[in-house]
Amino acid sequence: MKKVSVIGAGSWGTALAILLCDNGHDVTIWSIDQKEIDMLKHTRENKPKLPGIKIHEAIKITPDMEEAVQGKDFIIMAVPSKFVRSTAKRMKALVMKEQIIVNVAKGLEDETLLTLVEVIEDEMPHNDVVVLSGPSHAEEVAKKLPTTCVAGSKDLDIAQQVQDLFMNTYFRVYTSSDVVGIEMGGALKNVIALAAGISDGIGFGDNTKAALMTRGITEISRLGVAMGAKEHTFNGLSGIGDLIVTCTSMHSRNRRAGILIGQGHTLNEALEEVQMVVEGVFTAKAALDLAHKHHVEMPIIRKVNDVLFEGKNTKKAVEELMIRDKKIEYV
Amino acid sequence: MKKVSVIGAGSWGTALAILLCDNGHDVTIWSIDQKEIDMLKHTRENKPKLPGIKIHEAIKITPDMEEAVQGKDFIIMAVPSKFVRSTAKRMKALVMKEQIIVNVAKGLEDETLLTLVEVIEDEMPHNDVVVLSGPSHAEEVAKKLPTTCVAGSKDLDIAQQVQDLFMNTYFRVYTSSDVVGIEMGGALKNVIALAAGISDGIGFGDNTKAALMTRGITEISRLGVAMGAKEHTFNGLSGIGDLIVTCTSMHSRNRRAGILIGQGHTLNEALEEVQMVVEGVFTAKAALDLAHKHHVEMPIIRKVNDVLFEGKNTKKAVEELMIRDKKIEYV
Repeated sequence: MKKVSVIGAGSWGTALAILLCDNGHDVTIWSIDQKEIDMLKHTRENKPKLPGIKIHEAIKITPDMEEAVQGKDFIIMAVPSKFVRSTAKRMKALVMKEQIIVNVAKGLEDETLLTLVEVIEDEMPHNDVVVLSGPSHAEEVAKKLPTTCVAGSKDLDIAQQVQDLFMNTYFRVYTSSDVVGIEMGGALKNVIALAAGISDGIGFGDNTKAALMTRGITEISRLGVAMGAKEHTFNGLSGIGDLIVTCTSMHSRNRRAGILIGQGHTLNEALEEVQMVVEGVFTAKAALDLAHKHHVEMPIIRKVNDVLFEGKNTKKAVEELMIRDKKIEYV
Repeated sequence: MKKVSVIGAGSWGTALAILLCDNGHDVTIWSIDQKEIDMLKHTRENKPKLPGIKIHEAIKITPDMEEAVQGKDFIIMAVPSKFVRSTAKRMKALVMKEQIIVNVAKGLEDETLLTLVEVIEDEMPHNDVVVLSGPSHAEEVAKKLPTTCVAGSKDLDIAQQVQDLFMNTYFRVYTSSDVVGIEMGGALKNVIALAAGISDGIGFGDNTKAALMTRGITEISRLGVAMGAKEHTFNGLSGIGDLIVTCTSMHSRNRRAGILIGQGHTLNEALEEVQMVVEGVFTAKAALDLAHKHHVEMPIIRKVNDVLFEGKNTKKAVEELMIRDKKIEYV
């Protein structure tokens, strides 16, 4: 039995806390929001974010960061990407260097273009920071539907400890040493999901969407490799696997925003309609900045930027992708 | 303008003939079936297989193999996989060695375990045989929805000639020299589509299906590489691209048969219900034979065989895939 805390009570944090409790661990959930704390304590359910799923009485719930951090073997960071740095700042004075941090958020830091593990390492340089990622809708994990993920750490022994912590009959965890590859797949899939949504919104078919997904992961991989990632990783669960789930599900906000844009709505209209953070809009810009920095060609992500920020016609954007120079598939 | 004939008037052959005519080529369709010939000539539509799509008057239609073959620059073989050898036998005395053959069928020959290009080369050893494959529902190509494919030949110059022949604003063709890789992806995707269907039929979620697809292409790739293919190819349009289209579409017979099996029907009941050839059932066996021959581990394809032919419980099969030894994602 390990002592674990989950920082953040969103749908993914809640689902993972329940899974870890299922696995027999001593689990604490931390939330910054006192109202959320009260609701979770009284109803033992995260009604707005994970309705219908019971939160076991054994799971402790606290707004106190000291209580959440102290004495824990593992600390799971499950806050939205834009709060990763501020949350890490709260934690840094409390953590001990033998505590293992696991990041489960996906994204890039806007100003610095750092991955989220890099942000956490920047704040807590003495801790091992592991990433856990893969095709994993929280709702399905909470229903114990078979799911796979990858735990990534430069140190495979540490990744294996995280594998041991999470793995059970419905949650299979692989290990990998390619942290940046796992993170880049998770962050940039949202831009391709926007593109896939735009294609669906225009009324294009499954052929077009499969092409965007396949060529999309190829260009994500190209950037990732330029940043030191292994190409393999993008063909795995945290790469194409997660991309498949995101591009084919109606749960995906990025895809839904894309559909609206493909149907002729402006970016602002689409964002207003979806009424939640559409991560891919920010990541599209960041990805293009990284592409420039690393001298990598990313035609799909460039067209997404043109459509989102330059008012480019969506149909024309897809057509231009189709009639570029004749190419060899892999050179 | 090139002279091209399309051998076989199924949905894919018809869609490609129309595309080639659109591109300004002189096109002939050949069919073995006189009734089909009469119907195509009189209605200029392939009502049963590609309803609502006009076949241009300029396209010639013939049951005469000599007329179909003589003087053509390219001969597109678009017959079902089980008729590839018999059709090649009909053609072999008529072809000249400078004619380029393009195979667009997907599958393996049962008894020999040969790929279809290998079968054609076996019959016509003096001709260049190119494969064209990718995520391409015929119905969507016929509607001119943006689609991508790969043309594969050991000789890239020949592949480029096929690229030039087909490419236009809605049909983007890449080239590749990895013929066996392209063919193995196209053949084995159907087994994974069965597995994906079974998972859907049980009531598992998008997480499970994405995992089966991602790990599925990994094991197909493992076999392909053992047979001399390049790993890259399986991450491309003819690999994961085609797999995505097949596993997420209700058009896929393999997926539909899988769903029925997942819901508790026997293989025979499922086949009776689908009432068409379910290619993946034959390919599942052939893939396992090839896995033995090349000493490759294919856990998902093995479980599909257990379910189809050994009466293995479907839920137990998926659970056993989840709790195998803890693994590194890529070694």
